[in-house]
Amino acid sequence: MTPDTLSNTFSALADPTRRAILARLALGEVSVTELAQPFEMSMPAISKHLKVLERAGLIARGREAQWRPCRIEPRGLKDVDDWLAHYRRFWEQSFDRLDDYLREVQAKGNKGKKRGRKK
Amino acid sequence: MTPDTLSNTFSALADPTRRAILARLALGEVSVTELAQPFEMSMPAISKHLKVLERAGLIARGREAQWRPCRIEPRGLKDVDDWLAHYRRFWEQSFDRLDDYLREVQAKGNKGKKRGRKK
Repeated sequence: MTPDTLSNTFSALADPTRRAILARLALGEVSVTELAQPFEMSMPAISKHLKVLERAGLIARGREAQWRPCRIEPRGLKDVDDWLAHYRRFWEQSFDRLDDYLREVQAKGNKGKKRGRKK
Repeated sequence: MTPDTLSNTFSALADPTRRAILARLALGEVSVTELAQPFEMSMPAISKHLKVLERAGLIARGREAQWRPCRIEPRGLKDVDDWLAHYRRFWEQSFDRLDDYLREVQAKGNKGKKRGRKK
């Protein structure tokens, strides 16, 4: 994966219609005609989005039949996930700190209750 | 998080220089001057990239001192991670299938070895 590939992938994902197309394809493969229906877009507009997604390694299209189904291609999103892995510790640390804080608050709350019962 | 926020985040990540800035900030917070050095870019060019990253919720900048350090802001990348979570099963399934295949190949290989020993 070159930096250009990853740039293409992020650029393709920066459009809400293209993300909506991916969300539809996550439910199963469909023809371009079926895919176009809910978007109220012209076929050339949808085809343009599909080309961007295909070039970015985010979808693949069947070549075997007249009906050329579109489907999710995991490679592109996997590349994004691999890139994200270098940064995951930043928000996981934040959540660890939140966890610590919540445990602390809960512990204080329990102590309060115990004291209350002793009275 | 609105679709626009996520679009801004993906759009900001579609540039290799901005990803390199994030990689540098993953090592610790630095001033804009220090940040600019390895990139051989003008300060206005770096400032423009930083503004894009800041608007996308990917970095934050200190306001307290003359030295305004830049640091990673986990929120933007966490949003990307949350979005990716809906798709993770696609490549995890692929790896499960690869695992199954490798186990199968290994099992066949072991059977072959055992047969070889019996001869």
